[in-house]
Amino acid sequence: MNKNTPFKGIIAYPITPFTTGGKVDLPLFRGLVEKLVQDGSHGIAPLGSTGVLPYLSDEEREQITEATIKQVGGRLPTLVGVSNLTTERTVYHARFAEKAGATAVMIIPMSYWKLTEEEILRHYDQVAGAISIPIMAYNNPATGGLDMSAAFLKRLLEIPNVTMIKESTGDVQRMHLLKDMLGEEVAFYNGSNPLALSAFAAGAAGWCTAAPNLIPELTLALYREAVENNNLEAARQVFYRQFELLQFIVAKGLPRAIKAGLKLLGQDAGDLRAPLQPLTTAEKGQLAALLEKCGKPVILPTGAV
Amino acid sequence: MNKNTPFKGIIAYPITPFTTGGKVDLPLFRGLVEKLVQDGSHGIAPLGSTGVLPYLSDEEREQITEATIKQVGGRLPTLVGVSNLTTERTVYHARFAEKAGATAVMIIPMSYWKLTEEEILRHYDQVAGAISIPIMAYNNPATGGLDMSAAFLKRLLEIPNVTMIKESTGDVQRMHLLKDMLGEEVAFYNGSNPLALSAFAAGAAGWCTAAPNLIPELTLALYREAVENNNLEAARQVFYRQFELLQFIVAKGLPRAIKAGLKLLGQDAGDLRAPLQPLTTAEKGQLAALLEKCGKPVILPTGAV
Amino acid sequence: MNKNTPFKGIIAYPITPFTTGGKVDLPLFRGLVEKLVQDGSHGIAPLGSTGVLPYLSDEEREQITEATIKQVGGRLPTLVGVSNLTTERTVYHARFAEKAGATAVMIIPMSYWKLTEEEILRHYDQVAGAISIPIMAYNNPATGGLDMSAAFLKRLLEIPNVTMIKESTGDVQRMHLLKDMLGEEVAFYNGSNPLALSAFAAGAAGWCTAAPNLIPELTLALYREAVENNNLEAARQVFYRQFELLQFIVAKGLPRAIKAGLKLLGQDAGDLRAPLQPLTTAEKGQLAALLEKCGKPVILPTGAV
Amino acid sequence: MNKNTPFKGIIAYPITPFTTGGKVDLPLFRGLVEKLVQDGSHGIAPLGSTGVLPYLSDEEREQITEATIKQVGGRLPTLVGVSNLTTERTVYHARFAEKAGATAVMIIPMSYWKLTEEEILRHYDQVAGAISIPIMAYNNPATGGLDMSAAFLKRLLEIPNVTMIKESTGDVQRMHLLKDMLGEEVAFYNGSNPLALSAFAAGAAGWCTAAPNLIPELTLALYREAVENNNLEAARQVFYRQFELLQFIVAKGLPRAIKAGLKLLGQDAGDLRAPLQPLTTAEKGQLAALLEKCGKPVILPTGAV
Repeated sequence: MNKNTPFKGIIAYPITPFTTGGKVDLPLFRGLVEKLVQDGSHGIAPLGSTGVLPYLSDEEREQITEATIKQVGGRLPTLVGVSNLTTERTVYHARFAEKAGATAVMIIPMSYWKLTEEEILRHYDQVAGAISIPIMAYNNPATGGLDMSAAFLKRLLEIPNVTMIKESTGDVQRMHLLKDMLGEEVAFYNGSNPLALSAFAAGAAGWCTAAPNLIPELTLALYREAVENNNLEAARQVFYRQFELLQFIVAKGLPRAIKAGLKLLGQDAGDLRAPLQPLTTAEKGQLAALLEKCGKPVILPTGAV
Repeated sequence: MNKNTPFKGIIAYPITPFTTGGKVDLPLFRGLVEKLVQDGSHGIAPLGSTGVLPYLSDEEREQITEATIKQVGGRLPTLVGVSNLTTERTVYHARFAEKAGATAVMIIPMSYWKLTEEEILRHYDQVAGAISIPIMAYNNPATGGLDMSAAFLKRLLEIPNVTMIKESTGDVQRMHLLKDMLGEEVAFYNGSNPLALSAFAAGAAGWCTAAPNLIPELTLALYREAVENNNLEAARQVFYRQFELLQFIVAKGLPRAIKAGLKLLGQDAGDLRAPLQPLTTAEKGQLAALLEKCGKPVILPTGAV
Repeated sequence: MNKNTPFKGIIAYPITPFTTGGKVDLPLFRGLVEKLVQDGSHGIAPLGSTGVLPYLSDEEREQITEATIKQVGGRLPTLVGVSNLTTERTVYHARFAEKAGATAVMIIPMSYWKLTEEEILRHYDQVAGAISIPIMAYNNPATGGLDMSAAFLKRLLEIPNVTMIKESTGDVQRMHLLKDMLGEEVAFYNGSNPLALSAFAAGAAGWCTAAPNLIPELTLALYREAVENNNLEAARQVFYRQFELLQFIVAKGLPRAIKAGLKLLGQDAGDLRAPLQPLTTAEKGQLAALLEKCGKPVILPTGAV
Repeated sequence: MNKNTPFKGIIAYPITPFTTGGKVDLPLFRGLVEKLVQDGSHGIAPLGSTGVLPYLSDEEREQITEATIKQVGGRLPTLVGVSNLTTERTVYHARFAEKAGATAVMIIPMSYWKLTEEEILRHYDQVAGAISIPIMAYNNPATGGLDMSAAFLKRLLEIPNVTMIKESTGDVQRMHLLKDMLGEEVAFYNGSNPLALSAFAAGAAGWCTAAPNLIPELTLALYREAVENNNLEAARQVFYRQFELLQFIVAKGLPRAIKAGLKLLGQDAGDLRAPLQPLTTAEKGQLAALLEKCGKPVILPTGAV
């Protein structure tokens, strides 16, 4: 196999900001994307869980896809989320992303009714057949409600343009199994923030993360030490510096925590879309303390966030 | 408290049939609703999980809401599903259902990002404030991804027009806790088919079920013996007659299993919407055998379904 | 099949009391057994989980076996717990119980290393072959660490003197499956206190419970209404009267809760064996309130218990 | 804190072999211990789960304790398992191990009745107060039935001679939490074989493992590369060479799998104690293939094992 896997390192996930009137704030979104590019990320992934994909209308998804690709302007590869409950809508958005110039698309099989493996396979197959760019298959039972085993993911990788796997169960054994089953042929990516060190140790090609919105330097340093420098001792030290923050943003929900963190750092981040609500004042205080432990000076008082 | 709880007994859930072209087949849908009414159900609940609510567009939901209410024509109370990931869309559909003449609406708090209890409460509160008809709050972590405790449901019931609870965790202790906490003031409904006997024993006011599409007589007989006749021995016997079928339709997914069952019984049931796929031939054979054990003569050969 | 199943109704589990010096208090134990007999239980089951079987030496088990059988004196059937991690020790105690005059023995397959089904089957087979009295197979993953499926229990019942099943997973579906698979041929017993109503509704032959130590009248009334009188409405009312107490004694651990409850009711109940410790003062206060809700006057102040 | 933590690297767990008559085979046991010492392990830990501690009588435990210490003869530190359901028996065996010359003891809080945190703390405190040598607290909910959180383990480490933690939940986040909470002051050891790479990456001081019975070179090489050489790339490669074997021996149960493996490698390993039974012929064939992938020539045909 000689798969097209255009990502490595730190793949950064922007949030989707809303105006107080409840609309997507596109100028602000483009500013957030620009910052991720400037801060050194290796790829940009809009419309992920962090970007509250499932809470957006078709039209909003299209606007964000176009805004991302225009803003990145070819400086980095882009990975656009196109998941949907129905196959028909997933095909639609995958085609849109391809035409708009996305480098690749990410697809999580979304479950309301639990899907059988045959249904998941057919879903990916139909989307893959409708586009030419590579697909990253995303496994995250906590949000998507379905768990794809390593053996099943091996089958999925037989579809020519399904070339990458994002693993977010939070269990490093899944990555061991993937690596063991697929050897050098698989590019797998870690989607579980607190597992970042273990995942690179296990051989992950990259880390899909919203953390670069808040601590880009530390996420890049972990990749550099663990992978580029092969320095486990240094990687461990830089990992433990950010561990508590990584835990916090996952525990509180990435859109809520990243938005609060950006405001604490003095950046505009817009509103959330209901039913999602901001962190409490106490939670913002915890986050402020964690950011400062990571060497990020907090600008605004938590009460003002 | 003197809550408006307009349902008791067997609340029947129609499937949503699709044409081979992938559109909602409204005439067929109305036929399926009519059959549920004719067969003696005590209420009709379109746009539930069985009706693949989350796979439908806004316009399709509106068509099904109107078609149901027109077809039922006031002969029975109607319970229309209006759940959505965002609060704004839930309010929209709740208002639509009320204007269309629904007796009540059912709302499950849908999760992509896990919601906090405050977010769920606010979500219900905003929807409840926008309509005047009663709301049935629906707890089903297996499909909705959120689990509302008995203590939290008690809080939810403080909202004036949240008057009913549908419990679908599959754990009868939840019903015991609800009954114990809320006494005679709560109307709770069972949404877990294989728990039907235990739920009536525990004091459930009704059974929300897709089973009447296939075995209306047996579901009605269970309610009659367990509740109206207070005859536990007879209720147990009628329950065990349908137990394996109830297990099967849940295990295979209600839309898939009900559609296959209807066709085996000689009724048109339309197509599923992808990614959902029909039962396999072997599964249809199992279902045919179970229907016959329930005293329902299978008309079509399983290969032809 | 025409199985020897010598139990029905309320099978009562005595605790094992210890002296302050840490020895089994045999005279006190006999008094507790006598009270269970006098209060109308339908069977007596020493050396269960309530009787802290796994915390006792071989010699202590033998003393309790003999004391129970002597005290009951043939007035009721006795069910003696003989479980052990090794097959050799289980055979030893099963033979001892038979010689001492036990009506039947109860065996839970104890797990440190998870046993395969073949190992469990062989374990039961070797014990069953060493005795002539009936065996009740006990499924309780929460204490024993192994979960025997309904299909496996069906295989186990092919051993001639394995005639009864005690189901304690707390999931009523297991009882439905057992009843459905084995029909009238199986005698299954409920070992999960808060499931008592559902279990009788599902067709359980009896309820294995420590609750008669504290509320014998209510446990007997539930059996009478649900089974003998076929009066579901009355059974439900008597169940909800004791529901909170049943929940409490399970949540706190039966040996701790029963001992505290007996003392609150004015009866001596001895000490626990470490590492088990008495309930806290706050917990004793809760228990006192629950006993009074069950119509049991609390005699001692909770501070003195 | 300046804790006495006498272990690092590979701490090897011998099995307990039995004669065909069912007795502990002490001469064979000493031979197995000698081989672990000769093969380069950094510590010897008899009477662990691998050594089927809970299936042994008091006298057998004493014999194995003495045999280990005599055979090791001070060449390596020894870690003797002394766990028991009751506090009294745990104190007894801890004292015996200290008198016999053990370097340290390992204690898992064993659960039949779930223990409260206060009960676990008191249990450790009473044992710790009865001896002067260090204690390794062992967390393994899968075998012991209790799960001690990182926050609770921090409390436990306040007992002066509780100095080490063995973490076997299989979740690397637990190690991250321990390291994060306790910093350089804690020595934690990994007890989950397939987690060996992640655990060293996370900062584990050692690996408690039965694998050195079969593949001592590979286990030592992992420690050398990951910790001594700080070479993550090399550590990853040596980890994936042994990954499938590590998974297999855990999945099949260590006593069963190690015994079968030793025989395949041409070494006597005695019998198991019932209810534990040997691997099936098919399983032995799988194990033989895995050993050969690890570079260990299999001597006996699987049928003869």
